[in-house]
Amino acid sequence: MAPTPNKSFIYKKIPEVYLLPGEHLTVEDRPLDLDTAPLEGGILVKVFYSSFDPYIRDLTRDPAIEDFAPALIPDTPILSAIVGRVLRSSTPLYTPGDLVAAFDGPNAEYAVIPGRDLARAGVRKVVNPWGLDISYFLGVLGMPGGTAFQGLYNIGKPKRGETILVSAAAGPVGQLVGQLAKAEGLRVIGSAGSQAKIDFVVNELGFDAAFNYKTEEPDAALKRLAPDGIDIYWDGVGGPLLDAALLALRQGGRIVSCGMMAMYHTKPEDLYGVRNLIVVPNKGLTMAGFIFDYDLDKYQAMVDKVAPLLASGDFKALQDVTVGIDNAPEGLAGIFTGKNFGKGILKIAEPDL
Amino acid sequence: MAPTPNKSFIYKKIPEVYLLPGEHLTVEDRPLDLDTAPLEGGILVKVFYSSFDPYIRDLTRDPAIEDFAPALIPDTPILSAIVGRVLRSSTPLYTPGDLVAAFDGPNAEYAVIPGRDLARAGVRKVVNPWGLDISYFLGVLGMPGGTAFQGLYNIGKPKRGETILVSAAAGPVGQLVGQLAKAEGLRVIGSAGSQAKIDFVVNELGFDAAFNYKTEEPDAALKRLAPDGIDIYWDGVGGPLLDAALLALRQGGRIVSCGMMAMYHTKPEDLYGVRNLIVVPNKGLTMAGFIFDYDLDKYQAMVDKVAPLLASGDFKALQDVTVGIDNAPEGLAGIFTGKNFGKGILKIAEPDL
Repeated sequence: MAPTPNKSFIYKKIPEVYLLPGEHLTVEDRPLDLDTAPLEGGILVKVFYSSFDPYIRDLTRDPAIEDFAPALIPDTPILSAIVGRVLRSSTPLYTPGDLVAAFDGPNAEYAVIPGRDLARAGVRKVVNPWGLDISYFLGVLGMPGGTAFQGLYNIGKPKRGETILVSAAAGPVGQLVGQLAKAEGLRVIGSAGSQAKIDFVVNELGFDAAFNYKTEEPDAALKRLAPDGIDIYWDGVGGPLLDAALLALRQGGRIVSCGMMAMYHTKPEDLYGVRNLIVVPNKGLTMAGFIFDYDLDKYQAMVDKVAPLLASGDFKALQDVTVGIDNAPEGLAGIFTGKNFGKGILKIAEPDL
Repeated sequence: MAPTPNKSFIYKKIPEVYLLPGEHLTVEDRPLDLDTAPLEGGILVKVFYSSFDPYIRDLTRDPAIEDFAPALIPDTPILSAIVGRVLRSSTPLYTPGDLVAAFDGPNAEYAVIPGRDLARAGVRKVVNPWGLDISYFLGVLGMPGGTAFQGLYNIGKPKRGETILVSAAAGPVGQLVGQLAKAEGLRVIGSAGSQAKIDFVVNELGFDAAFNYKTEEPDAALKRLAPDGIDIYWDGVGGPLLDAALLALRQGGRIVSCGMMAMYHTKPEDLYGVRNLIVVPNKGLTMAGFIFDYDLDKYQAMVDKVAPLLASGDFKALQDVTVGIDNAPEGLAGIFTGKNFGKGILKIAEPDL
């Protein structure tokens, strides 16, 4: 058979600062023969959705620089979480027709994941007895959800009656952190960058309070909203908010360091200097960074807790869906400039559910 | 009987920046009737040695500012670790003649520790079957030793073959951290502020290498001495060395945050900004501050491990002894300006051993 057209979301080259559509991100046809393309012990997937995540910026770096995950290779597809249907399989693990998700798959209409990559990419069958929107398995029930769950429980160690500050509160991770913390009996304060996001986390997600870091100094906001201090700071941004949180943290406080969004696009010499670490020894603070643990048992523990709460309506997960792979470059670029509101999702094809 | 003269090391008033002899620190006679002074369920001690420690600077603050320990009260004696002989007791716990140490006692020729303070002050009998110099129970076998031991094992979690960077390597805590890490099979790199200190930790304590942070940029020194990176950073100073350590730390690295000596004498607006925290999430680093745990069982675990190694000569503990309470103001002030070399000790009286 002739190759099938296969629009693919391509990473063209290393950006200097921001990922720019057209220059660093394009959509190109990379035809694939669906019947004969070699699978090498893996699977061929028709992709329904892929995921836009901040860590992708880390992957678009000079491959000589080591980091938690290998750099993307220029002129190949963006790799991120995908969900889709198995069309063909050369492994006994999967059968054509299986609905699968991966933490790390090619962003294209059709994706081959060879056998050697199945485990590393976190491929698994989507188990969805709750009938939830399957795009949730890229966000609140995917890596961002697992990040929230693992970081909050393993590092944050929330205790009833404590106070948590959640940065990037309306983001995919922050949304779940705040709702989980609320369910654990904590007082939850959010920080976000627009009034709409503030209203959303307070009115829709049930946060106790939130402030707009663009219009109110974090120190002042924390004195106003948490005059007795905070116990946990969920840090997805770094920078001045981290400095304010250090002052507000009480004895024995924990900082869950899950990202430094405020610093991703800054040259090393222009990085914000955090001044208040001087309090770390005397307050006995712990600041811990972590990378989402791909272990599928740990992942499933999160799904088993969160999915029923989504199905019952107790938890919510706002998504920001870019429709059509042609719009992928603008969609991904937008999450780095605060344009998105909710978990960034790319819809590549209508799910055939 | 007439009161006995009792030279006491007095804290006069809150310093603006440095503690200055004569202005903030004086020696004054505070006579005490050794036979009749009320003990309130406690003990009267003839003090042989007291301890000069960096944390004393934290105690000489505005009492309105909360911290890990209460502020000192102006016009009363400095409180720090002491060792001495019980002269009189009104508690069944101690008998006249007992050799005792406290983590937190008045710096004076004679000290009353009332019953309500015995536990809080960490008073215990000195058990010394090794015949070690009893001033060691203020340093390597006191709070600094316990700090090194608790921080290294509880937070540093050293593993054979790893590399540790020890700041303030010739200081009372750093000396023991490096020797313990070496005994655990780590490669040990020290940082200190003079060639004499560098030579001491390498030649006398067995560190693998050391550098002078005053004459070599920490980034360059770490590239030279630890080209493959470090696993643990023992941080007693904060500031630029912390920034360099963040870059050098490997995936999963630990920062034991035990003090920020470089920042104690800096106004808030002039504090050094740490720029490289951006690596914390992706490297999965943990930075944890802690305060020495006064628990006497935990303290004894350290003594049981370290004392035999001191007695055998495998471990060393350099002290910097100020002789005579009249010299206490100069002696304490000196530890904040890097004049001391080794654990700061004040000899108040010859031990009657």
